[in-house]
Amino acid sequence: MKTIFNNFLSHISKRLFNLNNNYYYKRYKNNQLLSLASRLNQAGRKIIKMSGNNNNKEQPEWQVPVPTEPVPVLKIYNSLTRSKVEFIPRKGKLVTWYNCGPTVYDAAHIGHARLYVTIDIIRRILSDYFKYDVFFVMNITDIDDKIILRARQNYLYNNFKSSNEKLTKELVETVRTALNDFAKTKLGVYKSGSQGNDKAAPSKDDPLYLMYVQALRKSVDAVANAEMALEDSDTSKESAHELLENTYEIIISWLDKEKGASITDPKIFRDLAAHWEKDFMEDMRTLNVYPSDILTRVSEYVPEIVKYIKKIIDNGYAYESDGSVYFDTFEFDGSKSKNINNKNNSHYRHNYAKLEPWSADNEKLIEEGEGSLGSKLQGKKSKSDFALWKKSKPGEPFWESPWGRGRPGWHIECSVMASEVLGENLDIHSGGIDLAFPHHDNELAQSEAYHECNQWVNYFIHAGHLNLEGQKMSKSLKNFITIKQALEKYTSRQLRFCFLLHQWDSKLDFKDSSLAEAKNIETILNNFFVNVKALINEHRHSAYVSDGTHQYLNPEKELLNVFQGKQQNVHAALCDSFNTPTVISEIMELVYKTNIYIASGRSKININIIEKIANYVTKMLRIFGVIESSESQEIGFGVSEKQKSVNKEEIVLPYLRVLSNYRDNIREYSRQKKDYSEFLKLSDNLRDVELIEFGVSLDDQEDGKALIKFVNREELIKAREEKLKVQAEKLAKKEAMAKAKEEERMKRLEQGKLAPEEMFKNVKGEDEENAYSIFDEQGIPTHDGKGVELAKNRVKKLKKEWETQKKLHTEYLTSLEEQNNNDV
Amino acid sequence: MKTIFNNFLSHISKRLFNLNNNYYYKRYKNNQLLSLASRLNQAGRKIIKMSGNNNNKEQPEWQVPVPTEPVPVLKIYNSLTRSKVEFIPRKGKLVTWYNCGPTVYDAAHIGHARLYVTIDIIRRILSDYFKYDVFFVMNITDIDDKIILRARQNYLYNNFKSSNEKLTKELVETVRTALNDFAKTKLGVYKSGSQGNDKAAPSKDDPLYLMYVQALRKSVDAVANAEMALEDSDTSKESAHELLENTYEIIISWLDKEKGASITDPKIFRDLAAHWEKDFMEDMRTLNVYPSDILTRVSEYVPEIVKYIKKIIDNGYAYESDGSVYFDTFEFDGSKSKNINNKNNSHYRHNYAKLEPWSADNEKLIEEGEGSLGSKLQGKKSKSDFALWKKSKPGEPFWESPWGRGRPGWHIECSVMASEVLGENLDIHSGGIDLAFPHHDNELAQSEAYHECNQWVNYFIHAGHLNLEGQKMSKSLKNFITIKQALEKYTSRQLRFCFLLHQWDSKLDFKDSSLAEAKNIETILNNFFVNVKALINEHRHSAYVSDGTHQYLNPEKELLNVFQGKQQNVHAALCDSFNTPTVISEIMELVYKTNIYIASGRSKININIIEKIANYVTKMLRIFGVIESSESQEIGFGVSEKQKSVNKEEIVLPYLRVLSNYRDNIREYSRQKKDYSEFLKLSDNLRDVELIEFGVSLDDQEDGKALIKFVNREELIKAREEKLKVQAEKLAKKEAMAKAKEEERMKRLEQGKLAPEEMFKNVKGEDEENAYSIFDEQGIPTHDGKGVELAKNRVKKLKKEWETQKKLHTEYLTSLEEQNNNDV
Repeated sequence: MKTIFNNFLSHISKRLFNLNNNYYYKRYKNNQLLSLASRLNQAGRKIIKMSGNNNNKEQPEWQVPVPTEPVPVLKIYNSLTRSKVEFIPRKGKLVTWYNCGPTVYDAAHIGHARLYVTIDIIRRILSDYFKYDVFFVMNITDIDDKIILRARQNYLYNNFKSSNEKLTKELVETVRTALNDFAKTKLGVYKSGSQGNDKAAPSKDDPLYLMYVQALRKSVDAVANAEMALEDSDTSKESAHELLENTYEIIISWLDKEKGASITDPKIFRDLAAHWEKDFMEDMRTLNVYPSDILTRVSEYVPEIVKYIKKIIDNGYAYESDGSVYFDTFEFDGSKSKNINNKNNSHYRHNYAKLEPWSADNEKLIEEGEGSLGSKLQGKKSKSDFALWKKSKPGEPFWESPWGRGRPGWHIECSVMASEVLGENLDIHSGGIDLAFPHHDNELAQSEAYHECNQWVNYFIHAGHLNLEGQKMSKSLKNFITIKQALEKYTSRQLRFCFLLHQWDSKLDFKDSSLAEAKNIETILNNFFVNVKALINEHRHSAYVSDGTHQYLNPEKELLNVFQGKQQNVHAALCDSFNTPTVISEIMELVYKTNIYIASGRSKININIIEKIANYVTKMLRIFGVIESSESQEIGFGVSEKQKSVNKEEIVLPYLRVLSNYRDNIREYSRQKKDYSEFLKLSDNLRDVELIEFGVSLDDQEDGKALIKFVNREELIKAREEKLKVQAEKLAKKEAMAKAKEEERMKRLEQGKLAPEEMFKNVKGEDEENAYSIFDEQGIPTHDGKGVELAKNRVKKLKKEWETQKKLHTEYLTSLEEQNNNDV
Repeated sequence: MKTIFNNFLSHISKRLFNLNNNYYYKRYKNNQLLSLASRLNQAGRKIIKMSGNNNNKEQPEWQVPVPTEPVPVLKIYNSLTRSKVEFIPRKGKLVTWYNCGPTVYDAAHIGHARLYVTIDIIRRILSDYFKYDVFFVMNITDIDDKIILRARQNYLYNNFKSSNEKLTKELVETVRTALNDFAKTKLGVYKSGSQGNDKAAPSKDDPLYLMYVQALRKSVDAVANAEMALEDSDTSKESAHELLENTYEIIISWLDKEKGASITDPKIFRDLAAHWEKDFMEDMRTLNVYPSDILTRVSEYVPEIVKYIKKIIDNGYAYESDGSVYFDTFEFDGSKSKNINNKNNSHYRHNYAKLEPWSADNEKLIEEGEGSLGSKLQGKKSKSDFALWKKSKPGEPFWESPWGRGRPGWHIECSVMASEVLGENLDIHSGGIDLAFPHHDNELAQSEAYHECNQWVNYFIHAGHLNLEGQKMSKSLKNFITIKQALEKYTSRQLRFCFLLHQWDSKLDFKDSSLAEAKNIETILNNFFVNVKALINEHRHSAYVSDGTHQYLNPEKELLNVFQGKQQNVHAALCDSFNTPTVISEIMELVYKTNIYIASGRSKININIIEKIANYVTKMLRIFGVIESSESQEIGFGVSEKQKSVNKEEIVLPYLRVLSNYRDNIREYSRQKKDYSEFLKLSDNLRDVELIEFGVSLDDQEDGKALIKFVNREELIKAREEKLKVQAEKLAKKEAMAKAKEEERMKRLEQGKLAPEEMFKNVKGEDEENAYSIFDEQGIPTHDGKGVELAKNRVKKLKKEWETQKKLHTEYLTSLEEQNNNDV
C-alpha cells in the first residue's frame, strides 16, 4: 500500500512541478502514511486542475459577497400617501421635477426662504448625494390678480402723487372722500355693490380687520395734520406728500376703484412682475439656491394654456360660461379615465382633491384660490369648480382666446407649463404646504383631465410652514420679515443651517433660539476646520519621514470605526426622507469625537484620518449648500495658467497705474527742474491720498524705507481725516496767536508814533495846566508846570517812561522804514 | 323612479356642498335620466368619502411607480472570476480598498502613471459618482531587494568617486578589474559561485543581454580613453570622473560585490526610499491623483509582520529554515479552512494561486517574485514555496525576529498592512496586472492562511499593462519614459484623457496617435466650454426680460431628449465595469449635438439647457479628475472675504514693494538735492529693470504718460538685451569713428608742425639740389633752384599748397595753445 502511494505521488509530483531534482519525491517518501491519504485527494484534484495545458487550469469558485446588514433605500414622505414611500423614478437615474415658483408682486419673505432653500437642499441631496440626474423646472407666476392690483395701484398712486405737488383744500377733500369710501367698503358700513372687487367686510377677529382699522386711524390723523397745515398757510409739496404717504392704503384703494378700469398698457403689469422676479432671483442667489434648469413664465405660455384648456373642455371636464372657463369638479371626480393608449390606466377612475380630499368643500380655501379679482361663483355650476380662464374686465391685462379676451386662472398655469416641459408624468412635484389645496389638487385634476391619466405626479412633496416666534407671518401683525431683512441679522449660511436643523416637511418656528443653535454649530464646525487645517500644515512636512512606527493603532482604529459608523448613519438618515436634523447631529458627534482624538495625542496623531473626516464633513456640507460650491457656477476646465495671469493682471493693474502716474510726474518735475520740495509733496500725496484708497499704508521709517501695510481702507481714511483735523486745529491756533501778536504789535506801533522827545511836552496835570515847564535835551522834564524842579526819584521814573517810549518809537520807525522798502 | 332619484340627489347635493342656494339641485333636475344612474354611484361614493367628519375622508390609492426599463447595477471586472460581476460591498456604502503601491527605488515611469491614474479614476467614480464611502489604503514598499541594492551601490559609487579625484594608473587598473569581473559574471564567461547575488547569465535574446553588452562596450571605450589621457599626462579630476561615469554599470556591480557586505548604516537604505517616495508623491500630485486615506510603509510594520508570520506558522502553513521563513504552498492548497468562528467558511478549502492557477509552476515568475538578493530555493521545501521572512546577509538591513536577524519578504508586507488596517475581508484589492502572480496570489494565500478565511478579497481588479509604441518598456531598449519626461511633452490632463479613452483593464499602447486623440478631445471640449461661457454672458443680462414667448420648443425638447439619453448611457457605461471609453464617446456626441443646436439658432437659444449640459459635462470630467476639483484639497467653509484679501495682498505686495522703493529713493534724492538727471535715471531703471521682472512694460509716450502693458517676461528681458546690444554696437561704431577722426587729426597736427613760411625752404628738386632759390615774404618761391623765375601757374599752385599748410599749422598752433591751457 505504502509503495503504491509512493509511486503514485512520485509520478504526480514530477508532472506537477516539472522538477529537475527529486526533492519533492524524497520529501514525501519520508512523510507519514496517514497524511498521505488526504494528500492523494488533493494531488488528484490538482492534476485535473493544473497539469497538462496551463490554459485548462481553472480558477476556484468565487463566493458572491453577502452584505452584513440590509442596505437602506431612499424613501420620501409623499403628500399623496401621507407616508414615507420608496423613491422609484421612472427612467433610471433621471428625475423630473416641477416646483411651484413665486408670484412676483412683492419682496420675498423668510417663509419663502424656508421653502426655496428646503427644496434646494432636497434637490442637492438627490443630485449631489444620491447622484440622480435631476431635471428641475420652476415657474414664475407673472399673471395673477395680486400682480394686476398692485401694479395698477402703484401706477395710479405715483401718477396721483406727481400731479399733487401742493397741499390744497381740494386734495384734502379728495383724501377725505377716499377715507369715507374705505370705511364703508372695507369695514362694512355697507357692502360695495356691483363692483365686485371688494371682499365682504372681515370679522373683528380677522387680522385684516385690525389692518383696516389701523390704516383708517393713521389716515384720519394725517387728514387732521393736513388741515392744520393749511390753516398755517402751509401748502408745501412736503406736506402734500406726507398726507399721501400716510393715507397710502386708503388712497390706492380709492384710486383703483375710481380709475383702475382705465389702465390699458400691458407694460404696467409686466414691469412690476419683472422687477420682483429680479428681486426674487437676487435673494435666491444670496441664499445659494441652485438656479432651476428651466424657468417658465406664465406670460410666455398663454397660447399653450389656451390649447390645454380646449382639450380639457373636449375631454368633457370643463365648460365655458360668460367668457370664462371653469373646471367641472363633479364631472371629473370618479369618472373613468378615457386614456385608450394606456391599458393600465383604463380601469382607473379620476379623483378630485387627492392631496386633501377633506378640504374639497372648504369655501374659504376655494375662494382664496380663485383670486381677489374673481367674480365669485358667477357662472360656476358648482362651488368647488374653479376658473381655468378668466374673462378680463377693463383695467386687467388680457389675451385673445376662443372665449374672448381674458387671462389664465392660477392653477392651470402650472399644469400647462409642467406638462409642456416634463410631459404626462412627473417624478416629483413640490411646493409650500399652503398650496396643497386647492392649488395643487386643482393642478392634479387639470393635468389628469388633460392627459387622461391616473397619476400625473408620483411624489408630491410639501415643505413645512414657517412661523415667526410661534405666529403666522402677516403684515397687519408687523411680524413680516423679508429675506433681505433676515440677511441683515443672519448670514445665508446660518439660515440654511437653521433649515437643515428642522425636518423639511415639519413646521418650523423661526426664532432667535433656533438661529442661535445654527450659529453655534457653525462656530464649532469652523473651529474644527481651522484646527484641522493648522494640523495638516504642521504635519505635512514630515509626511515622508518615518521613524519606523506607524500611526494606525487602536485610537485610530476606534476613530475610523466611529467615522464609518457615522457615514452609515448619515446615509441611513438621508434615505429616511432626507432627515437632515439627524445628519447634522451625526456630523456634530463625529466632529466631537475627532476633536477628542486630536486633543488626546497631538504629537502622534494620524493626520490622514483627520483630514479624511474633515473632507467628508466638508463634502456633506457642500452637498447641503452650506459651503458654496463652485460646481454650479464654474464650467469647463477652470482657470488656466493664462487666464490666471489675466486675473492677476486685473488685480495688479490699479496699483501699477498709481506707480506709473507717480513716475510720470517725477519725470515731468525733473525735466522742469521743479523745486525739490515738490517731489516730497508728490510722495506725500502718494502715501496720504492715492494708496489709502487701496487700503495700503506706507509707514515712513527713520531709515528712509517705508513699511508697507495692508489696513482697512475706511480706517485709513478716518485716520487721515483725523490727522487733517488736528493739523487744521493747530493751524487755527497758530493763526489766532499770530493775530493776537500782530494786534499787540499794531498797538505798540500806535503807541510808538510819538517821539520820546515830545512825549512829556503837552502832558497836562490835574489842573489842566501843563504838567512840566522845563525839559532836558532828550525832552525829559526837569521842572514841573510851576517851574519847581522835580525830585530825583520823580525824574528817574520819568526817564524810565521815556526809555520805554524810546523803544516803542524806534520799533515804529523801523516798521515805517520796512514799509517804505517794501513799497519800493 | 325619476322622482325618487331627484329627491335623493337633492338630499346628497345639500349634504355634500352645504349649499345656500339650490343651484345644484336645479341643475340636476334638468339632467337626463340616463346620466343620473352613473352619477348616483359617484355621489354615493362621495358620501362615504367626503361627508360628515372631514378627517374621515381618505386619500385615493397611490400607484407604486414602475420604471420604464430595468435600472442597471454596477458590475466590475473581477480578476477572481475573470468576468464582470455585480459589485456588492459588505457594509452598505462603505468600500474598503487596498492598492499595491510603489517600490520606491527609482523614478516612476509612464506605466506607473497609467496604473495609478487608472486606479484613481475608478476610485473617483466609486466615490464621486456612485457615492460610496471609499476607504483607500496604499502601501509604500520601502524594504526591498531592489532598494537595498540600489542604495548600497549609490553609496559605494559616490564614496568611490569622491575618493578618486585624480586619474591614476591604479584607478584604470581597478576599473579594468571590474570590467573583467562584469564580463565573467554577467555574461557568463563563468558563473559566479558562492556569492549568490548574481543571476545566471541571460540568454542572447534576453534584453538584459543587450544591456550588459552595451555597458561593456561603453566601459571598454572609457578605459581606452582614460589610458590615452594618462599617456598625455592628463590626471585631472574631470578625466577621472568621466571614466567612472562611463563605466558606472560595471563599477557599481564590482563595488557592491567587493564592499556591499560592509554597509551597516540603516540610514543609507531609508534615505533612498524616502527620496523616491517623495519623488513619487510629487508625480502623483502633478497627475491629480487623490492621496490615499492611509499610507502604510513596510518599515513601519515590521513588528506586525513578525507576529503575522508567527500565526501563519502556528496555523501550519509556513516553516522556518536556516533563519528564513517560507510559505508552505503544498500544505495550504486544498487544505480545509480552520476558521471555527465562521460557520459559512468551515466547509471551504484553501486554494493556492486563485488568480492565476496556470502560473503556479512558472519558475521565471516565481524567481522574480523572490527578489534579486534571494538564495534560490535554499531551504525551501518546494519550488512554489516563497519567503515570508528573509535572513539578512551582511550589507542588508535587518530587524530582530524569533528566526534571527532578517527582513520581511515582499508578499507578506501587503498581507500584513492590508489586514492591519482593513481586517479580515477587503471589498477591493487592486494593482498592476504584472503583480497578479505571484505577488497577489501569494498575498491571498498568506492572508487566507492567517485569517483562516475563504475569500480575503472580494473584488480583485488589475489595471491593464502599458506598452510603449507596441513594445514593453525596458531600460536596455531605451524606451523607458519617466512620468516627468512624459509631462514635458503632454499635460497631466492629456495623459488622463488618454487613459480614460482606454478600458482600464485592457492593454494600452502609449503612442503619439493615442495622445493626439486625447488632445483633440481636450480641444473640442475646451472650445465648447469657452463658447457656452460666452453665450451665458451674452444671454444672462436678458434673463428677466420676456417678450412673451418661451424658449422651450421642439429643438429644445429634442436636445433635452438627447441629453437625458446620454445621461442614461453614461450611467449604464459606468455600471458596465467603468467603461470610460464609452462614457467619453457619449459625452463627445452630446457636445456635438449641443454645438449643432447652438449653431442652428443663435439668437433664440435656450441658454439654461445649454448651461445644464455644460455643467453636466464639467461635473463628469471633474469626477474623472480631468478637471481639478478643489474638493480634495479644500477643507471647510472656504476662503472668506477676509482671507480673499490676504491672497490679493500676496499678489499685490511685490508690486507695492517696487513702488515703495522707488518712492523712498525719490525722497532721498530730493533731500540730497541730487541732479535732476538722477531722477530720470531712477525712472528708467524702474522701467527697464525692476518692472520687467514682473512682465510689466512701461511704454513711455509723447504726452509723458506711460502705457502699462503686460508682456511675457522673457520676451521683455530679451528685448532689453537686444536694445542694450544695439546700443553697445552704436557706441562701438561711434568710438571707432571718433578714433579714426582723432587719428586723422593727429596726422594733420603732425603735418601742421611745419610753418608755411618754412615749407618750401629746403625742398629738393629731382637733382637733389634746392628746388627754389628766391622766396617772397610769405616764403612762397618765386624763382627755381637755378634762379629762373617761376611761371605764374606754378606760383599759383605753390600758393595753394602754402595756404593748405597755413591752415594745418594754425590748427597745430591752436591745439598747442589748448594743451597749454589745459596743463595750467
